Amino acid sequence: MSSHESRAQLEKETGRVEAFSDGVFAIAITLLVLDLKTPHGDETTLARQLLQQWPSYVAFLTSFGTIGIMWLNHHRLFSLMHRVDHTLLVLNGLLLLGVTVTPFPTSLVAEQWGHPGAKLAAGVYSGIFVVIAIFFNALWRYASSPHRRVSILRVPHDSKDVRAIHEQYKMGPLFYVVAFALSFWSAAASVLVCAGLALFFAIPPRTPD
Amino acid sequence: MSSHESRAQLEKETGRVEAFSDGVFAIAITLLVLDLKTPHGDETTLARQLLQQWPSYVAFLTSFGTIGIMWLNHHRLFSLMHRVDHTLLVLNGLLLLGVTVTPFPTSLVAEQWGHPGAKLAAGVYSGIFVVIAIFFNALWRYASSPHRRVSILRVPHDSKDVRAIHEQYKMGPLFYVVAFALSFWSAAASVLVCAGLALFFAIPPRTPD
Amino acid sequence: MSSHESRAQLEKETGRVEAFSDGVFAIAITLLVLDLKTPHGDETTLARQLLQQWPSYVAFLTSFGTIGIMWLNHHRLFSLMHRVDHTLLVLNGLLLLGVTVTPFPTSLVAEQWGHPGAKLAAGVYSGIFVVIAIFFNALWRYASSPHRRVSILRVPHDSKDVRAIHEQYKMGPLFYVVAFALSFWSAAASVLVCAGLALFFAIPPRTPD
Amino acid sequence: MSSHESRAQLEKETGRVEAFSDGVFAIAITLLVLDLKTPHGDETTLARQLLQQWPSYVAFLTSFGTIGIMWLNHHRLFSLMHRVDHTLLVLNGLLLLGVTVTPFPTSLVAEQWGHPGAKLAAGVYSGIFVVIAIFFNALWRYASSPHRRVSILRVPHDSKDVRAIHEQYKMGPLFYVVAFALSFWSAAASVLVCAGLALFFAIPPRTPD
Repeated sequence: MSSHESRAQLEKETGRVEAFSDGVFAIAITLLVLDLKTPHGDETTLARQLLQQWPSYVAFLTSFGTIGIMWLNHHRLFSLMHRVDHTLLVLNGLLLLGVTVTPFPTSLVAEQWGHPGAKLAAGVYSGIFVVIAIFFNALWRYASSPHRRVSILRVPHDSKDVRAIHEQYKMGPLFYVVAFALSFWSAAASVLVCAGLALFFAIPPRTPD
Repeated sequence: MSSHESRAQLEKETGRVEAFSDGVFAIAITLLVLDLKTPHGDETTLARQLLQQWPSYVAFLTSFGTIGIMWLNHHRLFSLMHRVDHTLLVLNGLLLLGVTVTPFPTSLVAEQWGHPGAKLAAGVYSGIFVVIAIFFNALWRYASSPHRRVSILRVPHDSKDVRAIHEQYKMGPLFYVVAFALSFWSAAASVLVCAGLALFFAIPPRTPD
Repeated sequence: MSSHESRAQLEKETGRVEAFSDGVFAIAITLLVLDLKTPHGDETTLARQLLQQWPSYVAFLTSFGTIGIMWLNHHRLFSLMHRVDHTLLVLNGLLLLGVTVTPFPTSLVAEQWGHPGAKLAAGVYSGIFVVIAIFFNALWRYASSPHRRVSILRVPHDSKDVRAIHEQYKMGPLFYVVAFALSFWSAAASVLVCAGLALFFAIPPRTPD
Repeated sequence: MSSHESRAQLEKETGRVEAFSDGVFAIAITLLVLDLKTPHGDETTLARQLLQQWPSYVAFLTSFGTIGIMWLNHHRLFSLMHRVDHTLLVLNGLLLLGVTVTPFPTSLVAEQWGHPGAKLAAGVYSGIFVVIAIFFNALWRYASSPHRRVSILRVPHDSKDVRAIHEQYKMGPLFYVVAFALSFWSAAASVLVCAGLALFFAIPPRTPD
């Protein structure tokens, strides 16, 4: 990236990274529906069969909420940036890797619920969210690092917005580590903590303005 | 969102929400085709097999039309907004949840048509549309609420456009509740009302200009 | 759409229709790969199995080329428009319906090649392209109609560009009708005409500037 | 494309090509997850089954990285262009063809790993990357050709950025030809070279500014 590039060009590049990321988020969140299988077999008992696969619905809703919240956070981070560099693109790629993988453990949890493999499935599920939370932190720490000649952020790195995100992100991986640890004891507890975190982050923050 | 953000920045954020939503609509409408199964088995009777799965085509076309109309409405609502906040993003997320789920009941209706589970399938199908219509109303009511210090709408909340949408949205959920109620009596009637609603909303409105 | 809307707002709306359509084109063209099945069974004969499914590759490449060309044309039409109205959105929706359906007859052709159902499959395949070509014409005729108080086109409806498209589109449906008619005689001939049309339209036009 | 088109219009067209390409990249990279199958069968041995399908994870990660790197390069090339013409669109279409095909050989490698067909699968896999690298070169050579009355590039074709890309692209196909050649001797070596190339290109370049 030469130093002669105009500010408009840099903004455009940031915009294209956001657009690509949005595409990946949108596809990953929509592919989750492919795990909702229409029951086959004895049709007179359709209602029972539909209800029996409720773990699929729990896993679907939890993953939908979690990817949705991740998109919100990604949206918020990028709204504070006005340029990207190669390292940021690679960190963003790792984050998107985690997002695109999500339908796989979702399907695993849905199929193993109530079976001997449920705890392992919940461990893989919450474990992937731990990894994603770590990638989110790495992306943000890199973007907001003060030791940088040309700032990635459009705002000062000690501004109120930046510090608020620092505060919030410190806890993210820890919450998911708790969900991961719970999976050794109870699959349901682990998945419900993940669902609870998505709900919790979906509650609008109380802001003075 | 700090009060120092420029108008351009707010517009850009609204644009990104639209782009993400468009992605989800586009993917959900395109994934519907995965439910059109190519018939296997005795190949000499391919024509008969293709015709026999006409309920799949009805369900596909109805869902395509319904998601298309939802996109049109989403497009229209967001063209009246010039900013988004956290609550609006969450309401938009609930709406997109309904949209991404649509391929599932579509597949259910296609498979159960003519079988004992058809009424239940039609009930799930029209029931999801009731929920989506309610989310649409919630999104619009929140966005157009007059009790707001900083307006989400770019137009006055008593303008002609806003009142026209109020009028039209009042009826949306009711229409789908009728389709849902019909499913207890006849699956075909319920799905055809849904198809009719998509057709009805697709007719261009007569406007003076 | 009120007459108070600014030109920028109208351009933005046209942009969102293009973005949504691009999403549908991009997804439909990418879903085609799901029809390329990895062979199962005796692994030592993998090479033979991969070669034996060459009809899948022909169908895949033909559909990829055709959707790609459709995108190019869509791109060209919309670059001449500076506003959209409800009717245009509905016509665009019908066009996108044809595009999203394409993976279904593609899969049909791939599976029936060499089987008794091949001619019927090729008929469905080329038939869908006839319908899409007709929708393309309807969209263009509506957009370029001179009997319109507020023009959809950004250029005069008797400009060189507009007349060139008129000339070219006159023939589109006819070509695909030929492919459709051929399907009653030979499936291969029908599909190869479709492939040839995609190749033909992919050749860059000789332009003076 | 008439000579009367404004610069803004040309930029917008370039932007739409980028957006469509981004959509295809985003979908292709996200569809890769559909190849990660959740193990069925004896559930008590889920952990072993999950570990046994490690070749799927290797193939998934390699393809994710490779498509991600391709997107980065596409992004970089298009940031240097300010117009597109028909030939460039066709070359871009061929490139996207290679990208959308990628999930197919990925699935092939994942299934054949450790089986007699592994070398052939790795050959198809790396062979597709050779073809994509050649298409990338063709696209770039066409765009940066100095024998052109109206330049596609926004920068002089002997600028530092352009020459740096020339240097780097000269080697791309050669590297993948090595991976292809290795597939005749060892499937693992071939795939690992592909993985290594993705990792290598993901390392941020050391730049003076």
